[in-house]
Amino acid sequence: MFQRVNKLVIDLPEVEYGDANAASAVQELLGGKFGEMSTLNNYMYQSFNFRGKKKLKPFYDLVASITAEEFGHVELVANTINLLNKSSSFTAPPDLTPLQNGKDMRSTAAFIASAQTSLAVDSMGAPWTGANVFTSGNLVLDLLHNFFLECGARTHKMRVYEMTDHPTAREMIGYLLVRGGTHVLAYARAIEMATGVEVSKLIPIPNLDNRVFDYARKYEDMGYGNVLFTWNNVGDYKDIDRIWKGTNPLSGERLYVQEGSPKGYDIPNLDDMPEEFAPGIGPEEFKKIAKRLLENM
Amino acid sequence: MFQRVNKLVIDLPEVEYGDANAASAVQELLGGKFGEMSTLNNYMYQSFNFRGKKKLKPFYDLVASITAEEFGHVELVANTINLLNKSSSFTAPPDLTPLQNGKDMRSTAAFIASAQTSLAVDSMGAPWTGANVFTSGNLVLDLLHNFFLECGARTHKMRVYEMTDHPTAREMIGYLLVRGGTHVLAYARAIEMATGVEVSKLIPIPNLDNRVFDYARKYEDMGYGNVLFTWNNVGDYKDIDRIWKGTNPLSGERLYVQEGSPKGYDIPNLDDMPEEFAPGIGPEEFKKIAKRLLENM
Amino acid sequence: MFQRVNKLVIDLPEVEYGDANAASAVQELLGGKFGEMSTLNNYMYQSFNFRGKKKLKPFYDLVASITAEEFGHVELVANTINLLNKSSSFTAPPDLTPLQNGKDMRSTAAFIASAQTSLAVDSMGAPWTGANVFTSGNLVLDLLHNFFLECGARTHKMRVYEMTDHPTAREMIGYLLVRGGTHVLAYARAIEMATGVEVSKLIPIPNLDNRVFDYARKYEDMGYGNVLFTWNNVGDYKDIDRIWKGTNPLSGERLYVQEGSPKGYDIPNLDDMPEEFAPGIGPEEFKKIAKRLLENM
Amino acid sequence: MFQRVNKLVIDLPEVEYGDANAASAVQELLGGKFGEMSTLNNYMYQSFNFRGKKKLKPFYDLVASITAEEFGHVELVANTINLLNKSSSFTAPPDLTPLQNGKDMRSTAAFIASAQTSLAVDSMGAPWTGANVFTSGNLVLDLLHNFFLECGARTHKMRVYEMTDHPTAREMIGYLLVRGGTHVLAYARAIEMATGVEVSKLIPIPNLDNRVFDYARKYEDMGYGNVLFTWNNVGDYKDIDRIWKGTNPLSGERLYVQEGSPKGYDIPNLDDMPEEFAPGIGPEEFKKIAKRLLENM
Amino acid sequence: MFQRVNKLVIDLPEVEYGDANAASAVQELLGGKFGEMSTLNNYMYQSFNFRGKKKLKPFYDLVASITAEEFGHVELVANTINLLNKSSSFTAPPDLTPLQNGKDMRSTAAFIASAQTSLAVDSMGAPWTGANVFTSGNLVLDLLHNFFLECGARTHKMRVYEMTDHPTAREMIGYLLVRGGTHVLAYARAIEMATGVEVSKLIPIPNLDNRVFDYARKYEDMGYGNVLFTWNNVGDYKDIDRIWKGTNPLSGERLYVQEGSPKGYDIPNLDDMPEEFAPGIGPEEFKKIAKRLLENM
Amino acid sequence: MFQRVNKLVIDLPEVEYGDANAASAVQELLGGKFGEMSTLNNYMYQSFNFRGKKKLKPFYDLVASITAEEFGHVELVANTINLLNKSSSFTAPPDLTPLQNGKDMRSTAAFIASAQTSLAVDSMGAPWTGANVFTSGNLVLDLLHNFFLECGARTHKMRVYEMTDHPTAREMIGYLLVRGGTHVLAYARAIEMATGVEVSKLIPIPNLDNRVFDYARKYEDMGYGNVLFTWNNVGDYKDIDRIWKGTNPLSGERLYVQEGSPKGYDIPNLDDMPEEFAPGIGPEEFKKIAKRLLENM
Repeated sequence: MFQRVNKLVIDLPEVEYGDANAASAVQELLGGKFGEMSTLNNYMYQSFNFRGKKKLKPFYDLVASITAEEFGHVELVANTINLLNKSSSFTAPPDLTPLQNGKDMRSTAAFIASAQTSLAVDSMGAPWTGANVFTSGNLVLDLLHNFFLECGARTHKMRVYEMTDHPTAREMIGYLLVRGGTHVLAYARAIEMATGVEVSKLIPIPNLDNRVFDYARKYEDMGYGNVLFTWNNVGDYKDIDRIWKGTNPLSGERLYVQEGSPKGYDIPNLDDMPEEFAPGIGPEEFKKIAKRLLENM
Repeated sequence: MFQRVNKLVIDLPEVEYGDANAASAVQELLGGKFGEMSTLNNYMYQSFNFRGKKKLKPFYDLVASITAEEFGHVELVANTINLLNKSSSFTAPPDLTPLQNGKDMRSTAAFIASAQTSLAVDSMGAPWTGANVFTSGNLVLDLLHNFFLECGARTHKMRVYEMTDHPTAREMIGYLLVRGGTHVLAYARAIEMATGVEVSKLIPIPNLDNRVFDYARKYEDMGYGNVLFTWNNVGDYKDIDRIWKGTNPLSGERLYVQEGSPKGYDIPNLDDMPEEFAPGIGPEEFKKIAKRLLENM
Repeated sequence: MFQRVNKLVIDLPEVEYGDANAASAVQELLGGKFGEMSTLNNYMYQSFNFRGKKKLKPFYDLVASITAEEFGHVELVANTINLLNKSSSFTAPPDLTPLQNGKDMRSTAAFIASAQTSLAVDSMGAPWTGANVFTSGNLVLDLLHNFFLECGARTHKMRVYEMTDHPTAREMIGYLLVRGGTHVLAYARAIEMATGVEVSKLIPIPNLDNRVFDYARKYEDMGYGNVLFTWNNVGDYKDIDRIWKGTNPLSGERLYVQEGSPKGYDIPNLDDMPEEFAPGIGPEEFKKIAKRLLENM
Repeated sequence: MFQRVNKLVIDLPEVEYGDANAASAVQELLGGKFGEMSTLNNYMYQSFNFRGKKKLKPFYDLVASITAEEFGHVELVANTINLLNKSSSFTAPPDLTPLQNGKDMRSTAAFIASAQTSLAVDSMGAPWTGANVFTSGNLVLDLLHNFFLECGARTHKMRVYEMTDHPTAREMIGYLLVRGGTHVLAYARAIEMATGVEVSKLIPIPNLDNRVFDYARKYEDMGYGNVLFTWNNVGDYKDIDRIWKGTNPLSGERLYVQEGSPKGYDIPNLDDMPEEFAPGIGPEEFKKIAKRLLENM
Repeated sequence: MFQRVNKLVIDLPEVEYGDANAASAVQELLGGKFGEMSTLNNYMYQSFNFRGKKKLKPFYDLVASITAEEFGHVELVANTINLLNKSSSFTAPPDLTPLQNGKDMRSTAAFIASAQTSLAVDSMGAPWTGANVFTSGNLVLDLLHNFFLECGARTHKMRVYEMTDHPTAREMIGYLLVRGGTHVLAYARAIEMATGVEVSKLIPIPNLDNRVFDYARKYEDMGYGNVLFTWNNVGDYKDIDRIWKGTNPLSGERLYVQEGSPKGYDIPNLDDMPEEFAPGIGPEEFKKIAKRLLENM
Repeated sequence: MFQRVNKLVIDLPEVEYGDANAASAVQELLGGKFGEMSTLNNYMYQSFNFRGKKKLKPFYDLVASITAEEFGHVELVANTINLLNKSSSFTAPPDLTPLQNGKDMRSTAAFIASAQTSLAVDSMGAPWTGANVFTSGNLVLDLLHNFFLECGARTHKMRVYEMTDHPTAREMIGYLLVRGGTHVLAYARAIEMATGVEVSKLIPIPNLDNRVFDYARKYEDMGYGNVLFTWNNVGDYKDIDRIWKGTNPLSGERLYVQEGSPKGYDIPNLDDMPEEFAPGIGPEEFKKIAKRLLENM
């Protein structure tokens, strides 16, 4: 089972302007083959399908708990896209063509289907697909897949970072490079535990330290690169400390497990966008709605 | 953010035998257009993309909190599929063709790709797709979609129930018919709050009471049809009680909101399946792995 | 614009029994790459996109009018599938598993999604796709495509005929082999008109006369192989007689154009199927509905 | 069966200039999930698959007859796209790069595949798919789906209207907003007849009157918002008047059924586009073709 | 550039009987995500897109030359499928329903579309897709991908082997397990060269020696597990010996490079299948064709 | 079996500048429905699946040998795309946004997924699919398909030529128009041999001589329009001369078969692109790699 907390993993900066094409590019990190929808669903299905959950508990705990973190990453990227979609239209009657900018943007779907918010698609507009889920049941193969998936995801994040300097996008990517880095290492360690082969020596792939990225360095400095959370408050997944131990091969710092989740920050509010009829509730209707909501039945 | 608890929403019965084709049919309820992957992702994206989260908090709280429940439903259906895949093969050296039954089953993918466990696909083997996510941003339209989606999901559950009498499948469907029923009603109520139109009078669609289904009646009797959980322990989504109030139009019983989640039950363990090389860890390897896991670094 | 007449192009025989897997096979002729959805949509889009509708009127008239016939073919194949789905389930309460046969059939979608009726998919369950539409705008290339498409469609019909001896399926295929044959010839003739090259000498592809098929011979004898209808009553497409002229190279009989459509036959009625909740209207509800329908407002 | 008339439902204005990206945006209304291909095919399949065509004739008549209107809508949107594709290239020998503008437009497919005319795709270039067809066989659920589909389609039309002020696009959308409005109401009424629940009070969704749109107001004034045609001249679908009755809840005007179709207007002719080799018939060839066409055989 | 030789890499046994569902299962090894189409196209595109072909020649030579071998593997699997499709139908006039068995087989497409031969699809009938190609341009990441891909491909081969004991299928899989094993090792070695990390110690994944499989043992004994061919006769790719060197970690035997290709065996001939109209040339036509072919022009 | 030669079929010019959107347009000729992936795979599968390889050897030899040429065409188009992707980014640290141009280009995938090189997709970014393979087994139908496919492919090449005047793109298209022309004629001839019908009189489709294209004229002058290679050095496919004989209907020149392949030219080298981490090997690493490669083991 899952529980939800109305917080975002980081304090996502809101700026005055957006960039609709940057939002489209960032979609790759949400609904792309190597986006957060893929990491989320791979680990979720692998945790459901895990054979030997008790016997191999530390490994099960690892994929099970990272699943929960990935939900938060999906949420973070989606919120980033929503903020990047700011200021691409204006509020006016339909005949004044308030969505005219959308016509020449890369994603018309963002204007027509989702009121300038996130969609479960990649940067080319192709929907995320369940074909992206790998769940072979073979422990070493699944871990190898996950290690590869995280390295691919890291590469895509690095490239999208290089495509836009929008501060909201960069803050998100900076953070995810660091957290993604812990997942790369976690799966490398898990392979080491399962096989004895020192796969973590391959890190980083690509061979560029997170600290080269201004927005990632900050989170490295805060120690986000050394910790795994259990995303659970009652010790269900605490055995990840059998895998996540020793020192970070890049920083030399001590790895540690923290029970629970980070405290989180406010989720950005999105204003009404009347030209998209979103949410499409006028003042008169709102009054009636408020009344109904307050009524006891 | 999300947290994870290592429990399943119900006490799923394990029986000695499985039914691979029943597992394939049940995949519709997981990765089909009206499966749990769809309800999960629709509400998840709508909660991310919600405009006016504060102003329209009870509605936001509703889609946000149901999202968390849907994760648990995805988990429940996946576990059911895993149990239904029992006994379709035998353990033997490869030359004795231990997966021979798989060749004539409806889903060869279950034998080749996932070691006889769940996949993110529908009953025809087509992958779930992000194209199933609807997130228009218009409050009434999104709620209407969700109401329709839940009615469609209910119909599919009813039909799959009629296709297999396997007790594990039926226990799961019985429970989900009841919980799905609360979601149908919740979205109906939300539309009523937003528009004043008595949509809940349309219920049930199809026009057959959950109580007709043996395995659902039990859960109705336990009152699972009258409660919404918040799936959160600190009051983040408590305003759903502004929508979920009054009485259940079918049972006449009082609707109520329960903070938090149901307590949950043990997740079924899946035994090794050597003929699938899953998890593929022999006794010798296991000893070495155990040693590495226990080491401190 | 289109008009609709509540008739089916042939008198489709209804028999007591069905064959769900035959229905699945016949889906290829509906939603397959070479199915009626493809012929329909290819000619429909080509007629919309035709450059030089006036200057090249006989060619335009040809694709425009055949479009209308193809609608009727889509309708005919769909009705056939519906009749083939008879007797695959029984009427009983859900707990008696009335759809149990569906679990092992090739198309579970027919049982779960469409209440044992037609879907816009092929024999493997893959949805028909707009990628099947070819509309290059080059007259000769489009005609060559259509000629090839009709030959491919003919091949698929011949093979599905060989897969099932169900009388409803065969009646439909027998008729469509003959009508498809006229379309093969029509596009061959059109290419001849456009280029002077005697493409109709290639016919038949595959090299087997329709008369070899018992159910097709009947329609050949009735002369259905020599006529093109205009599917219009006011002369809009009468210039197809500039292309459809001379004699049928296979039969030696005179080709002729008939203004309007064939008279048509009753469309099969489909009984209630309570185990599919289709249409799901009980006697009590029906009474209320009837009353509402009769009311004047 | 269907018949075809060589007319377009409205008098579509032709202007000197086009806008290739506007054409791409308008593709959403043709091949998108909520485009006319979807309304057409949903109602077409539902009419084929209808259980109880006689017993529930007014409902059957409704989906059956609206199917025919949707064909005309597909035709209208396709013609609009064709006109919007004007002036994006110039006629010149290939080495002068006459299609150079196409390289930077959103849809290169329009330049490469379809000679700057319509395709069966959405605004992102994704092909329309049969997965968009919903045909559950349950009357209330199908009607609810259709009501939702029409509301979604309306939303998309409103947004595309706001993306382009091209007069051809707006004329088409203005008309379709009004006709789509009648379909929204028709399905609402049908649900009311089937259930007694006053669903039509939900209208309009989104909550903005068609009259706000300059190009729609004209058609509302002409009364197009109050009439349903039968698209048939011999009374086959006349029982839609059992559903389509009373007054329009928005205008207060009387609803009425008109046997047959609107009279229709000339379909725009599309000139040769030599740089696309469409239709690719030079003057010399044309002479030969004309001669062959005139020959009697 | 590529050249073709009319030989098959092994002497594929032909037996009297086939097994249509085994053919469908084997399709996974052809058109599945981990089938030969995927290995072929991944290495082909990576070789085209390789940055630093000269500087990193041994790595380039590796992916470039393995590409050529993969073509031969695609060919081998396709031929196997063709032989497995034997005896599923009989030769008779269409009215005797000679393809009747096809109706209940897992792949109706094999009967309708391809005359009981191979298709570019997986075991569920889903077409192979270019989305399976990974070509990041980062050397280590691409090699890691390839290593993972080969391990996944090996797993699928092992499982399909366990699904059918048909001797043709097993001969093919036995051989490909051995050759696939060399590719697993080759990419492991390449990663070792690029990074110094001893990835080959992870082998075999899954942890089961090829020698456990009767049909693979033979090829291991023949030394096919120790050699890489260059698939070129003029030394273009000879630098693979900089990577493929030392000893095989499993057998302890010496690895060596052999310039050129294996000698190859006759490609199985496929008899006419009149009930599929394939090739559809009757004796009379054949005589005419032979005459035309012999004519000089 | 296939062999590979490290040469490109033509001497592809490299210029200083690229054009990322031209690269995207050219993708249609690689991964589009009528691109080289399609011609390659159609002929490859048809050659595998050919019934009567001996009896109908000249036809088999034709599809088998052209397959090999198509590999070289896939290679040529991919290399062209790679050169067209030049100069769209600059080398700089990530925080300087070196891939910023990519954000507004038509294919963000080229920047994120493939380090500005080719992908197995079409000009809209949709992956190539195995659904594009047609292999009916009926000789005449397959040949007719191939003839149509080549005419469609020619049309697309002509249109892409008109979209960009980049010299690398045009050189490639000029050459492929000529070679594609020989394949059009080859399949026309094959149909003539199989049926006696003079299909080659339909050529050229579209009706515009290759010589109109500056970059094609050169290759026509060199005689590339009259020759078929066998792509084999030991006479395996020499019987294509039974089909490829007589004179070229357009030029009147003698057709002839040349055993083997053209000699080929150097494959363009692609420089490091550090901003894409491709290949991502720094000078220090390179030294270590070089040392390992040189070691004997």
